[in-house]
Amino acid sequence: MIAELLSVGTELLLGEIVDTNSAWLAQDLAQRGVDVLWSQRVGDNLERLKRAIQQALSRSDVLIMCGGLGPTGDDLSREAIAEVLGETPTVDPELERALRERFASFSRRMPEQNVKQAWLIPSAESLPNPHGTAPGWLVSAQLGGKDNRIVCLPGPPRELKPMWLEQAVPRLDLPPAALYSTTFKTFDLGESSAAERLGELTNGANPSVATYARHDGVHVRVASKADTAEQAKTLAQATEAKVADILAGHIWGRDHEELPELIRVLLEAKQRRLATMESLTGGMIGEILTSVAGASAVYSGGVVTYTAQAKVAFGVPQELLKTQGSVSGEVATAMAKAAKERFQADYGLATTGVAGPAKAEGQPVGEVYIALYDGTEPILKHLTLPALERNWVRERTTFTALALLWSQLHARQ
Amino acid sequence: MIAELLSVGTELLLGEIVDTNSAWLAQDLAQRGVDVLWSQRVGDNLERLKRAIQQALSRSDVLIMCGGLGPTGDDLSREAIAEVLGETPTVDPELERALRERFASFSRRMPEQNVKQAWLIPSAESLPNPHGTAPGWLVSAQLGGKDNRIVCLPGPPRELKPMWLEQAVPRLDLPPAALYSTTFKTFDLGESSAAERLGELTNGANPSVATYARHDGVHVRVASKADTAEQAKTLAQATEAKVADILAGHIWGRDHEELPELIRVLLEAKQRRLATMESLTGGMIGEILTSVAGASAVYSGGVVTYTAQAKVAFGVPQELLKTQGSVSGEVATAMAKAAKERFQADYGLATTGVAGPAKAEGQPVGEVYIALYDGTEPILKHLTLPALERNWVRERTTFTALALLWSQLHARQ
Repeated sequence: MIAELLSVGTELLLGEIVDTNSAWLAQDLAQRGVDVLWSQRVGDNLERLKRAIQQALSRSDVLIMCGGLGPTGDDLSREAIAEVLGETPTVDPELERALRERFASFSRRMPEQNVKQAWLIPSAESLPNPHGTAPGWLVSAQLGGKDNRIVCLPGPPRELKPMWLEQAVPRLDLPPAALYSTTFKTFDLGESSAAERLGELTNGANPSVATYARHDGVHVRVASKADTAEQAKTLAQATEAKVADILAGHIWGRDHEELPELIRVLLEAKQRRLATMESLTGGMIGEILTSVAGASAVYSGGVVTYTAQAKVAFGVPQELLKTQGSVSGEVATAMAKAAKERFQADYGLATTGVAGPAKAEGQPVGEVYIALYDGTEPILKHLTLPALERNWVRERTTFTALALLWSQLHARQ
Repeated sequence: MIAELLSVGTELLLGEIVDTNSAWLAQDLAQRGVDVLWSQRVGDNLERLKRAIQQALSRSDVLIMCGGLGPTGDDLSREAIAEVLGETPTVDPELERALRERFASFSRRMPEQNVKQAWLIPSAESLPNPHGTAPGWLVSAQLGGKDNRIVCLPGPPRELKPMWLEQAVPRLDLPPAALYSTTFKTFDLGESSAAERLGELTNGANPSVATYARHDGVHVRVASKADTAEQAKTLAQATEAKVADILAGHIWGRDHEELPELIRVLLEAKQRRLATMESLTGGMIGEILTSVAGASAVYSGGVVTYTAQAKVAFGVPQELLKTQGSVSGEVATAMAKAAKERFQADYGLATTGVAGPAKAEGQPVGEVYIALYDGTEPILKHLTLPALERNWVRERTTFTALALLWSQLHARQ
């Protein structure tokens, strides 16, 4: 089965946004063993959109379109598909009702132009969109003597991703996946150091081993391909075990696992609560911990103490700030203790350091201390990060702190 | 002049890397007034690459290819261009010498396969690459009775960008066309409501008016095109004024302006400091405020009070939580007051609400209160957001709170 991707929107051709949907869909399709041979972008132009659809249908089995499903005159995906197939869109009463209800539910009047989001053509079935107003389309049609399918999804990634996974994939009868892959997610390991440890393993083609520097650490992916999923898995087995062995002690998760959810689950299982005190990360740790549902059961809260005065107000001894400076292991530890105490939590997690762009208190950019306190012996971590961009330093600090917390919770399971 | 982009590499079709080169080139071309109507990606496959090149030459004036210039058998851009033009590559002695010298300069022996990076064809001139081993090509050819140019650049962005700007652009004699654009960034306005207010203006082609839903609010872009920058600006003037008029009271910034930096500048100019108390946003406001350098001069810090207990510990009256519930205007106001007081700041900004996925305290997902307190009359904002994904609710709340703060600071300038 050959799939083709078509991203729609003039903003893509003006370079105003980067087309991340295509990469995400391509990766998902690759994992399902579907070949993507072509990937295109076109603007909000009916003629060019029609030409792109026609061409895609002539050379691919499934066309996946992203974008152009909005309510405005610029949103032309429905019109283009209808014209290519020679069909006429009509307003589907059920879709229209749902659309109007959705607007009513948040006390808004539906602008009349939005009614086109309730359009259907005879060859299309509607794909529900629980995260937005625009339903998608799944079109099944014969064109040029061959069976064609078109999946039409809205552009915003938070709408597109669940719709693809929950609505489109189950309806597509994709061939049994023959690609197997596992991703190890690591901490306290740089990408070149990971690659060096893996050595010759990274030269293999099937199974392949590849490293990726990601926001939450270095990922190492083992992938293999065979006729059946079972065979692919077997093929990868020995390599997977070697990689796990080489990375041992540095792996916090696998595949779709995410740090904040793993931490939430560990804390909940232990009935423990966490509090934070953040300086250079400015709330990033709290923001990430609370990005998962159910966080309120395990996260009491946190303080962002962005000044020495605030640190003192929230329990860091003034004397310590004077003698050690606010970027110090002593102050990080005092912050972790104060966080635990102020929020009556079981764990206190704290960060202090220099995010840049300028030095602070004579300390260089990238100088960072992370402390974790559970009422026994405080754990302190000192990082000397490269003096890269401010938000990179904040992000490395945040994920190192989260990995430290995870490894402590995990070790005491 | 019509340009087409072609990114080459199987890794793009597997979704292993996101194609950021195309967006970067598209943006640069748009600013030079060159239309990009098509943008494609193909894998490392000679036949498909040739088909993509042929098609591009048939419909565009300039084809810009990225990638496929490496030394391996997978790197096929040179081969494909040569075959499409019916020309035979030969090793250019000068390029070969430079290539061998480059390897010698870092004491490496050049692998023999690398010699293909010294290839040229009669229609191509070499584009020097000071940041890597692969020179680019600028091809000028007649095909199908029309003048065609192909610019062939290496894939790594740190090689591609300087080569495009320094080597390719000066050789292309781009027409003296110019694009002018202004983007208005708004608050308290949905995309369809913005589009409705703009009405017929969004139907224009030159100048064009388009709306975009972004993480920090709806953006409205006015763009025009003419022979010179001055003419393009003049052409847009009347439309720009109309748009500004229609959106009046909802615009927080323009073009590259960002809320956290605008807020930092306003607070600094007034010598005022801010503190936050966040519930559903979990630290997102603090994180965004501290994403800009110099934040410590205006942001004292904040508290994430994720439980009723924490709210009380940081100064919200217990009684208020009992009688009003934690998702209430009264509690939001008390939080803003407590934040201001605890951090001895001039402004306190607070959020409380239900991010979802489940109801909380009988309140529906999307029920949000934002309060701002400066020691005089508290300002309260009540939002009823659609019950979309958790992080969408948090993000809308965060940027609505920041826009509220900005508008108050701006009004009192």
